[in-house]
Amino acid sequence: MNDQLSFASDYLEGAHPSILKRLADTNWQKLPGYGFDAISLAAKDKIRQACHAPNAEVEFLVGGTQANAVMIDALLQPYQGVVAANTGHISIHEAGAIEAGGHKVFTLPGHEGKITAAQIAELAADYVADANHDHMVMPGMVYLSQPTEFGTLYTKSELQAIHDVCQQYDMRLYIDGARLSYALACAANDVTMADLATLCDAFYIGGTKCGALIGEAVVIPDPKLLPHLFTMIKQHGALLAKGRLLGIQFDELFKDNRYVDIARPAILYADQIRDCLKQNGYQLYGSSPTNQTFFIIENQQLARLEQQVAFSFWEKYDEKHTVIRFATSWATRKQDVDQLCQLMRELA
Amino acid sequence: MNDQLSFASDYLEGAHPSILKRLADTNWQKLPGYGFDAISLAAKDKIRQACHAPNAEVEFLVGGTQANAVMIDALLQPYQGVVAANTGHISIHEAGAIEAGGHKVFTLPGHEGKITAAQIAELAADYVADANHDHMVMPGMVYLSQPTEFGTLYTKSELQAIHDVCQQYDMRLYIDGARLSYALACAANDVTMADLATLCDAFYIGGTKCGALIGEAVVIPDPKLLPHLFTMIKQHGALLAKGRLLGIQFDELFKDNRYVDIARPAILYADQIRDCLKQNGYQLYGSSPTNQTFFIIENQQLARLEQQVAFSFWEKYDEKHTVIRFATSWATRKQDVDQLCQLMRELA
Amino acid sequence: MNDQLSFASDYLEGAHPSILKRLADTNWQKLPGYGFDAISLAAKDKIRQACHAPNAEVEFLVGGTQANAVMIDALLQPYQGVVAANTGHISIHEAGAIEAGGHKVFTLPGHEGKITAAQIAELAADYVADANHDHMVMPGMVYLSQPTEFGTLYTKSELQAIHDVCQQYDMRLYIDGARLSYALACAANDVTMADLATLCDAFYIGGTKCGALIGEAVVIPDPKLLPHLFTMIKQHGALLAKGRLLGIQFDELFKDNRYVDIARPAILYADQIRDCLKQNGYQLYGSSPTNQTFFIIENQQLARLEQQVAFSFWEKYDEKHTVIRFATSWATRKQDVDQLCQLMRELA
Amino acid sequence: MNDQLSFASDYLEGAHPSILKRLADTNWQKLPGYGFDAISLAAKDKIRQACHAPNAEVEFLVGGTQANAVMIDALLQPYQGVVAANTGHISIHEAGAIEAGGHKVFTLPGHEGKITAAQIAELAADYVADANHDHMVMPGMVYLSQPTEFGTLYTKSELQAIHDVCQQYDMRLYIDGARLSYALACAANDVTMADLATLCDAFYIGGTKCGALIGEAVVIPDPKLLPHLFTMIKQHGALLAKGRLLGIQFDELFKDNRYVDIARPAILYADQIRDCLKQNGYQLYGSSPTNQTFFIIENQQLARLEQQVAFSFWEKYDEKHTVIRFATSWATRKQDVDQLCQLMRELA
Repeated sequence: MNDQLSFASDYLEGAHPSILKRLADTNWQKLPGYGFDAISLAAKDKIRQACHAPNAEVEFLVGGTQANAVMIDALLQPYQGVVAANTGHISIHEAGAIEAGGHKVFTLPGHEGKITAAQIAELAADYVADANHDHMVMPGMVYLSQPTEFGTLYTKSELQAIHDVCQQYDMRLYIDGARLSYALACAANDVTMADLATLCDAFYIGGTKCGALIGEAVVIPDPKLLPHLFTMIKQHGALLAKGRLLGIQFDELFKDNRYVDIARPAILYADQIRDCLKQNGYQLYGSSPTNQTFFIIENQQLARLEQQVAFSFWEKYDEKHTVIRFATSWATRKQDVDQLCQLMRELA
Repeated sequence: MNDQLSFASDYLEGAHPSILKRLADTNWQKLPGYGFDAISLAAKDKIRQACHAPNAEVEFLVGGTQANAVMIDALLQPYQGVVAANTGHISIHEAGAIEAGGHKVFTLPGHEGKITAAQIAELAADYVADANHDHMVMPGMVYLSQPTEFGTLYTKSELQAIHDVCQQYDMRLYIDGARLSYALACAANDVTMADLATLCDAFYIGGTKCGALIGEAVVIPDPKLLPHLFTMIKQHGALLAKGRLLGIQFDELFKDNRYVDIARPAILYADQIRDCLKQNGYQLYGSSPTNQTFFIIENQQLARLEQQVAFSFWEKYDEKHTVIRFATSWATRKQDVDQLCQLMRELA
Repeated sequence: MNDQLSFASDYLEGAHPSILKRLADTNWQKLPGYGFDAISLAAKDKIRQACHAPNAEVEFLVGGTQANAVMIDALLQPYQGVVAANTGHISIHEAGAIEAGGHKVFTLPGHEGKITAAQIAELAADYVADANHDHMVMPGMVYLSQPTEFGTLYTKSELQAIHDVCQQYDMRLYIDGARLSYALACAANDVTMADLATLCDAFYIGGTKCGALIGEAVVIPDPKLLPHLFTMIKQHGALLAKGRLLGIQFDELFKDNRYVDIARPAILYADQIRDCLKQNGYQLYGSSPTNQTFFIIENQQLARLEQQVAFSFWEKYDEKHTVIRFATSWATRKQDVDQLCQLMRELA
Repeated sequence: MNDQLSFASDYLEGAHPSILKRLADTNWQKLPGYGFDAISLAAKDKIRQACHAPNAEVEFLVGGTQANAVMIDALLQPYQGVVAANTGHISIHEAGAIEAGGHKVFTLPGHEGKITAAQIAELAADYVADANHDHMVMPGMVYLSQPTEFGTLYTKSELQAIHDVCQQYDMRLYIDGARLSYALACAANDVTMADLATLCDAFYIGGTKCGALIGEAVVIPDPKLLPHLFTMIKQHGALLAKGRLLGIQFDELFKDNRYVDIARPAILYADQIRDCLKQNGYQLYGSSPTNQTFFIIENQQLARLEQQVAFSFWEKYDEKHTVIRFATSWATRKQDVDQLCQLMRELA
């Protein structure tokens, strides 16, 4: 079943082997539920350390849409909405989970998935200046993803500027880190987890796409911010009885910098793929430096390509061309990357 | 960490070893996400077979509260509510997840966790007869648990009668099977999975408490009932990217009747504990024939007991006595049960 | 159309004539919308004075269910629910408006529509004491009605005791005053509007049943409690463009104690009806001292009664008897009451 | 208080005198509540006749945001959203009422407030074509306003085309007629109420801005579409106990074509204002043929203007110019229009 070459996504395989081993090693331990077991507590400590946030509340949730829905609902008042890029995950691909929680998503046109402090400030200032703003949804928080859905990165100074706008307009700042390890492992990145803990009101460290079977770790640097978050997690159906499953995974991923280290090859391989594409005349689409590579391919080439490798369709480029995506991951093997590059050369 | 004797709950350990093995064996397979992988599809087929429901829609969700919240929201119209026992999980222990979805929970006084067709019929008839019922929430479905939160079982004729009332008043019937394997493995039970598929509009087969790490399998016998359930699952943040994790577990649990077979010792051990308690003068509380045993203990005995074994506090009985619960599970070991019985004898 | 004798409810007629006159007198004035017109502002001041609450926020809403839904949603956090009598309007007759806003209604068994400080304290204490309360809905406020749906009254000391329990458990106290004028006009009442402003976090002064065409005035004694209530009112679809309609009505109703004075005859007439019923051997049902009178009537008498007067069916008493209600109002005429008493004597 | 010249909005005055007279004439009639009185029933019949929709369900609601929130919630499934112009009332000025009901508003860029069948078809086709659409909100209905927030009108053929797209993609079509009388009274209009009843699944006939004190009449041509709409209205807090208040108003407004006739002067006066503005060198902003007139004014002129007449600020045009609005209504007087025109000439 492993036969076909696939760069379709970064959640194709199971989990990092250390996780499976730990699951087996601890299987017969009788542990309390709901995240109060010693392994989950240890994992939370490791994350606090990695974030230089000794007092942070850390909660483990099962998936990204769930984490976004719970946290946005918890951070907003009923009369507030969340500002996001029009290409943000919450704007398009969460089946209306944010609206189902009662909140509007304000969308700003993104550039390669990113929005700017200036855009956010303009939206907030327009709201404040509008004489009718009591009849309108108040922008109450900003949602970013790092890396973005287009693989791009916010710089530390960009985040600082967005943070400052949020402070100015009393908005919360929340970052979706579904692929955070691929940001942290990237040479182009200058934002650490400690920076996130300084700049954000909440963010999540993705597990599902970064070596875990499932799971995302929400970090709230100021633990007084959401005193009843546990109950809200339960209310959203997001609390695991066997919290150990999440604790074990993050305890393994946060041993010895593993969370970042296992993502490094994914970046190297993505760079190798990008070099190969450029050298062979393919035009990259966007400037992602992380594990996702977008490029433009002629439709007849595309038809041949899909005989031999799995990828993600991204969007129609024009009548004769299509944008597609190759994703690498912590689980990508060198031989598969070499084979892909060989294939792309032949196809060129 | 396995040292202390514990009968505190049925989710203390990890998963059935076959599951861990299968996770390891399939770890490097590149599988599509969101439950469309071949293993998940095979698992769904096994469940359809076990339920004699060849056309049923089967969806895997992560936890019980989540399954209840998604399914009740999907099955009800906005102007409808759900009828449940006052001791039902949705009535008390789901942090208002059903109301957060916009629906009222009508509670009927349960007897050992069970409600009757007559009670439901009376509630529905009162609604219909009330001249003001257009100003009231319409009872739109019935929620039962099998076994109940008190370990008791609905008989097939009781379920048939409730089904008939539901048909009469155009209400859906939904069963929470968080501990379903412990019903199926119990000699006192006469309700099969095929019966559930005949009598219910939807039910879920519990995994978390029945051998899985996590996961519940929702079964909708008539697949035309909820054409957009997938999107509603996503909207509730309940869709796993790595659907394989759930598919693998249910594929293992539904091999060769394993789902029921691994629950049989839990029933035997619970019977052994109940016999021991009765022989040593303890008074059972309720008549659970399944894996949960409730009994009354004098408070000074209780103080000594909690030095030596973990259990669940259930409720205060009177000034001098307390109701507590021992739960066995698929993972319970004979030596622990023997040790518990020895302990209870000494304490008597 | 005025021919049939009717004591069916207290919203049978239009409005107090002073309101119709004022509507006509002000009809061509060009006034700003949304409650910012001078008349609405003046009406709010009159209400603040009547409540001895000079800083209170006063908002005019259109109806009772709407006022309850807006205020309960505004006062509760997402993880909280509201405590009410099982016979409370929000518990039964609001079509699930509170649950549609995401909140559970905890019901306590009422005595003639009233619940006690002790009942509320027990519920709150049980919540606090329950080791699993983080998995449960937190009781966050108490809903009372004054007078109750059964016409009974809370005394000042009863309200004080409930207020103290609310303070102890950090719950808000909210009172539904749909028929408040009939409490204030009643000799048996010892609770003033100023008392309500001292004891409650919010309450509403009913207009619809007390002389207005429509409208209820919400009073929030501490204006800092809900800084964005205006936007929440708008979000609930409860903001009138022509706020003048509500302002005019309350400005008229709060001139020279009119709100209470016009309710006095309703109480006198209800007392006359109760005396007549008792003298003629009918058994009163409950002890309402306000404008609603409940009594038990034999079913053959009932059949004859309904040929001649309109009333409200309340509930079946036993196989041979029924409970029905006569309601008087600010618009009830003496000759109709006399005719009703004559009728009841003949029927006896 | 009537001194200042004001063209600030179309809800400055009270109600058409016939309404006030009818309220007075019927004040002492004892009428059943909740819209079941004979006057409300007669008003509904008049509306059915005006719409040539003899079977239509007609419901009276209090305001526009409320009508939109109730109807969109009633017409959509939980997994669906509503398509609107980015300038639509639900998109901006309803404080998130639609999202509070759990639904996404898809916004399309409007041209003078209008969207086209082609835009809607593209959005729907993109949804259908997107391989991930099960992870996305389904477009389930289209919201239009007639006239739009910019005073423009959909033609019958435009509505027919939008209707056809809705049929093709199984979407409901709903029209917000807050200012419908000003469309119907306009020479440029070719869409009748009967056309709306043929082309839409639901629409509302505005009262608040068209001669009533408050109230909007929702028309659902196929009464089988929403069998439990009454309960949903109640649940939204949108049901009036004294339904007579709404019935009386619409019964008066729909006598002898009054609803359209009283709007005719508003159009004549708006035409007079537009002619005056053009003749005096002001630049109209947009092409509204109805009762709202938008134009561009130099900021120093603006400063002088606001000393003498009330208007609505619309938006900043550039550093030196502003867009403002003059609105006429059924209550506008000729002398005020003449005075305004004189003023604009002097200011030019």
